[in-house]
Amino acid sequence: MARRRTEAVEGDVVVALVENRARPRGRPRLAIDPDAVADAVAELFAKGGSEAVSIVSVADKLEVSRATLYRTVPTKEDLIGILFERSTLELTNDAVAIMADGRDVRQRLHGLVALQVDAAVRMRQYMPVFFGGAGFAPEVFERWHSWSKEYEQLWAQCVEHAMEEEVLESANVVATTRLILGMCIWVSRWYRPNEDISTAEITQSAIKLLPSAS
Amino acid sequence: MARRRTEAVEGDVVVALVENRARPRGRPRLAIDPDAVADAVAELFAKGGSEAVSIVSVADKLEVSRATLYRTVPTKEDLIGILFERSTLELTNDAVAIMADGRDVRQRLHGLVALQVDAAVRMRQYMPVFFGGAGFAPEVFERWHSWSKEYEQLWAQCVEHAMEEEVLESANVVATTRLILGMCIWVSRWYRPNEDISTAEITQSAIKLLPSAS
Repeated sequence: MARRRTEAVEGDVVVALVENRARPRGRPRLAIDPDAVADAVAELFAKGGSEAVSIVSVADKLEVSRATLYRTVPTKEDLIGILFERSTLELTNDAVAIMADGRDVRQRLHGLVALQVDAAVRMRQYMPVFFGGAGFAPEVFERWHSWSKEYEQLWAQCVEHAMEEEVLESANVVATTRLILGMCIWVSRWYRPNEDISTAEITQSAIKLLPSAS
Repeated sequence: MARRRTEAVEGDVVVALVENRARPRGRPRLAIDPDAVADAVAELFAKGGSEAVSIVSVADKLEVSRATLYRTVPTKEDLIGILFERSTLELTNDAVAIMADGRDVRQRLHGLVALQVDAAVRMRQYMPVFFGGAGFAPEVFERWHSWSKEYEQLWAQCVEHAMEEEVLESANVVATTRLILGMCIWVSRWYRPNEDISTAEITQSAIKLLPSAS
């Protein structure tokens, strides 16, 4: 089932896999679905942290041979990278879309909160790891670090604008940004599907916490 | 230097160590200062998680023999328990004091936020572990779980009262409580002493985020 890749391109495999998600219809699929890899890594990560993620454990979960997985995703860092790329790409794309549309700053701020709470619920098994930056290999950590700065910057622009428009009270922009982000990220730690507090209810409570224009 | 303890009382050693902190002057000190144990455990925990905490590593850090430490604190769970007891006791005592004094509900809410941000900064190396409940032995987890519920309940009382007095907008009390707590807890993840955002500035930004009476 594996499509043999030459050694020369193996270093770019994570990028290739991510780009492959947008491939036009009719182009051949990769042997292993990157979304399936990301799901498997997420599940293993959630249960046993970074140590639980390996070619062996992911191959077992996907029911493919280790050799097949190895040909597509040669290292553990690449495995974690696939999950990381999927999650961060999704968050960034959604946040950029919110910031780019015609809504006013209050609606944008509320949109970012809704996005982050929703992501916290869906990605709850590994989000604290991603936002905390712990448990990464140095190479992945570097990518996390620059993504994290960029993503925070996007939020900070919205927070600063909200303060200018008196939608938020004037305060330290960086601290305020991280406080709102943290409030949303921490949802991933306490959300329980069986607890009868819905994502919509959490989002609404979060938005009500933010002061209205005074 | 060790004061030999009989086997019968070793099971209560954590409690004894904690209680010992309030001993009257003139009573003999335990061989090993529980605060020093807690500091050593916190440091090891921060660097290498639960796995880094052991009789050997703590004894090394305290520069006492393993036998001496072992006689006072026989298991790894007891070591982590000492840090846990110190941190939770401190938080609960401070929160109870805020709730019991004569301040109005807005001042109480702001007091709890200030307490939690300050604790997040001071305990930043291990707070996410304590509030996330990850990395504990089952016995310690049980204690964490009941403490955590009790502490949240204290906060929830204040939040509910704040909604009744229209200091906070009406919303899901549990979700709102956890959102505010999470905003403060997450400070432990991003606070950096060299970043020039002071604890006071963070607290002020957090309080400004909460809506005033409308």
